Amino acid sequence: MTSIDFNADLGETTAGNPVADDAAMIKLITSANVACGFHAGDPHDIAKTLKAAAEAGVTVGAHVGYRDSAGFGRRFMDYAPGELADEVLYQIGALNALAHANGTTVRYVKPHGALYNTIVHHEVQAQAVIDGIKAFSPDLAVMLLPGGVAIDKAEAAGLRVIREAFADRAYNPDGTLVSRREPNAVLESVEDVVNQVRQIAQSGSITATDGSILQVDAESVCVHGDSPGAVEMTRAVREQLAAEGVEFKSVL
Amino acid sequence: MTSIDFNADLGETTAGNPVADDAAMIKLITSANVACGFHAGDPHDIAKTLKAAAEAGVTVGAHVGYRDSAGFGRRFMDYAPGELADEVLYQIGALNALAHANGTTVRYVKPHGALYNTIVHHEVQAQAVIDGIKAFSPDLAVMLLPGGVAIDKAEAAGLRVIREAFADRAYNPDGTLVSRREPNAVLESVEDVVNQVRQIAQSGSITATDGSILQVDAESVCVHGDSPGAVEMTRAVREQLAAEGVEFKSVL
Amino acid sequence: MTSIDFNADLGETTAGNPVADDAAMIKLITSANVACGFHAGDPHDIAKTLKAAAEAGVTVGAHVGYRDSAGFGRRFMDYAPGELADEVLYQIGALNALAHANGTTVRYVKPHGALYNTIVHHEVQAQAVIDGIKAFSPDLAVMLLPGGVAIDKAEAAGLRVIREAFADRAYNPDGTLVSRREPNAVLESVEDVVNQVRQIAQSGSITATDGSILQVDAESVCVHGDSPGAVEMTRAVREQLAAEGVEFKSVL
Amino acid sequence: MTSIDFNADLGETTAGNPVADDAAMIKLITSANVACGFHAGDPHDIAKTLKAAAEAGVTVGAHVGYRDSAGFGRRFMDYAPGELADEVLYQIGALNALAHANGTTVRYVKPHGALYNTIVHHEVQAQAVIDGIKAFSPDLAVMLLPGGVAIDKAEAAGLRVIREAFADRAYNPDGTLVSRREPNAVLESVEDVVNQVRQIAQSGSITATDGSILQVDAESVCVHGDSPGAVEMTRAVREQLAAEGVEFKSVL
Repeated sequence: MTSIDFNADLGETTAGNPVADDAAMIKLITSANVACGFHAGDPHDIAKTLKAAAEAGVTVGAHVGYRDSAGFGRRFMDYAPGELADEVLYQIGALNALAHANGTTVRYVKPHGALYNTIVHHEVQAQAVIDGIKAFSPDLAVMLLPGGVAIDKAEAAGLRVIREAFADRAYNPDGTLVSRREPNAVLESVEDVVNQVRQIAQSGSITATDGSILQVDAESVCVHGDSPGAVEMTRAVREQLAAEGVEFKSVL
Repeated sequence: MTSIDFNADLGETTAGNPVADDAAMIKLITSANVACGFHAGDPHDIAKTLKAAAEAGVTVGAHVGYRDSAGFGRRFMDYAPGELADEVLYQIGALNALAHANGTTVRYVKPHGALYNTIVHHEVQAQAVIDGIKAFSPDLAVMLLPGGVAIDKAEAAGLRVIREAFADRAYNPDGTLVSRREPNAVLESVEDVVNQVRQIAQSGSITATDGSILQVDAESVCVHGDSPGAVEMTRAVREQLAAEGVEFKSVL
Repeated sequence: MTSIDFNADLGETTAGNPVADDAAMIKLITSANVACGFHAGDPHDIAKTLKAAAEAGVTVGAHVGYRDSAGFGRRFMDYAPGELADEVLYQIGALNALAHANGTTVRYVKPHGALYNTIVHHEVQAQAVIDGIKAFSPDLAVMLLPGGVAIDKAEAAGLRVIREAFADRAYNPDGTLVSRREPNAVLESVEDVVNQVRQIAQSGSITATDGSILQVDAESVCVHGDSPGAVEMTRAVREQLAAEGVEFKSVL
Repeated sequence: MTSIDFNADLGETTAGNPVADDAAMIKLITSANVACGFHAGDPHDIAKTLKAAAEAGVTVGAHVGYRDSAGFGRRFMDYAPGELADEVLYQIGALNALAHANGTTVRYVKPHGALYNTIVHHEVQAQAVIDGIKAFSPDLAVMLLPGGVAIDKAEAAGLRVIREAFADRAYNPDGTLVSRREPNAVLESVEDVVNQVRQIAQSGSITATDGSILQVDAESVCVHGDSPGAVEMTRAVREQLAAEGVEFKSVL
């Protein structure tokens, strides 16, 4: 039976102001990338998210980011490597303490925003992130974009790597995402998204815009809950694929 | 043989700007109250402090504070109890992750600044702090001012309590500290400080300004390193007492 | 012809994540309480709000708050008076610079959240807020809850005071708001809100829950845009009253 | 009579914890680059610095930085241009409000740390900084490193540019500073520093490490107060040059 992992960013509520509909998403996903308080989230709102994840049986990952709440972690910051490794370690430790108190534990790490994109190509920051993760525990997995230096560093460090793909983004033939400035960057019909997710579930591959098959070995699919439409899309896709017999379960 | 624990606040360096002479103090104390990044300290500077503490064999405590780096944690903040408990838990978890990566572990918690003073009398915040500590681990000790509701809450929760006294502060007959606005609030001669610390080491008691004996059951003595004079005072007091045969060792 | 001022909190978007529907509200109000970056808002999002306010002819106020973005300014903080006065002054100056660059100017100050509620009764903080406002300019007005010490301090300082009432909140006979923990704390029908706003517009008074008339001298009415329902309510109320001939214009 | 401007970074005290000896430096300099709260400084400590500058007759500049207090503004951040311009504008406005309340006014802007270094070569950020300054007032001057794109942008915008040189740093023949990793990067004798400052005062030029003369047109000399030795050096250099008849006065 074919199975797939749905992951989404949760716990980014700060001071009670939500960024996404966490309550709806927790029922639709199998892995939650939970904010750690640096790019978003405060400890109490994070704790609520962790409790909900524990109750729903959703696997928890640490969604570590740059220390830039004013920019939501979306701006590159030029850290010294030791600084970045220690900030990653700090965030994982903080989240894991909240997780344990709420009946779950951090199983993987997914970098957020500018950090996620930077370590695709920035060797020093990629190594720092992997160092920070491994310093917490060599048993943590790390969720990353296929390709890029962070995966090399993670595998060299002996960490379990989870490659992810995006449910609703179009891919260029070279494996990069079609820029949002282009038309057709985002798949907008349920049918197109279902087709893309089904293919990932069955073979870990993506069909690029030119029709070529990209073997990205994706084990998890990133979905979003930051708009009513996004939640509805995720629900429709999950229901359709469940009806086809696809099983939704965490990769870990 | 009589022994005593010397504790001091460390790790409050932010972005490389020191608040105290941590390198000098680490050689003079037996317990380090290490900042957790909320009132002061950044993860990388904190990590350096933890490494130094590990190498020096100094016991590590989490110096948790209000989330107010702009005010150095010295301003009361009116948290909802769940918020405060989760912020305490977050800080301990973050610090402990850094501690483990640097060869040590968090053994106790000492609240900082306004939080320390508030939970002497504020029942709700006192309970929240104890809840946050116990949520991390019931094996953590908590270092507090003798008297006050936080000690009651800690003991009711089954936590190990370490009562502390101040090396260089004068005490009123009711056990409170003489206000810094009063003359003679601070003991300024090495001899006076030595006498106060020796008495604590021998009997856990303090002689108040009126000559009465306060049986505060202090097991640890708080010393400071935030001025050249403070470091010199601590060194002179330690040398004198060591010469008298007092042993300096962590209470834990 | 009867007229009224509608004010609402705007500019609380941080890093592109909105708290309310500013674009919809800007068309419905006559005075905008614009966040200054301490409890919420980043300079770039604030600037966009100011530009929209300028284009819509909406009067701009500085919505100053405690420096507590993690708590959205909703937690009391025990500032020293000089600290608080300087933080108020800093926020007004920052906002006014952004305002000038976007074709408008700060005309009044409305404290936010816990600061707003605290200075109803806290003499020292009330004086500090007034000091900070007057230090910027004695020509600024200040928008406050009727009753309370801040109004006394403001009038003693010679500042123009704008008393405000809430469009949709029930009032106790003593002039305080019915607690949200009580049933009927919030007026939920358009008719009830229209009646309350009409009465304020006509006489500056409120009818309390026991039917008594409270002469609060309100010149402005606070409305909200932080939920789709709140925006709809405000629109319906404004349309109804406009149809009755009530004029909507800034009190300044 | 030959004259020179001495500028130094002040107001970086946060929550009462000093970074430099502002009280000593204020007597030795003629222009103060005052922190604006983003990389360092809180409003109340900043206000005290501004008052001291006003009383000493020292010209005030806004020392604007990246919003990174955890990194003291020393890490490059990849802002969108509109974000950066608005953050510069916000900081100047905040500082100027505090300045006016303390008897002075912001006359120039000197970017801090990573921002200062970045805009030597980063065209987009250089333009954003100049845009932010000019949005506040076209009458503000801007203090910059000789050479580099920020000077071009400032002059194109019609802003008054103040080129600065460093009192105690050695210069390469191409006008760049000798890296601190090299021996002899820093001039350590009073005589060497006096010679360098005298040359700047007389001709605006520097003698590079190979003996060549760099005509940098420096009008101001940057000095430091972040260590006891730095204050002593500045005092000795100023006294020596004053004895030679050099006048110390602000360039503005």
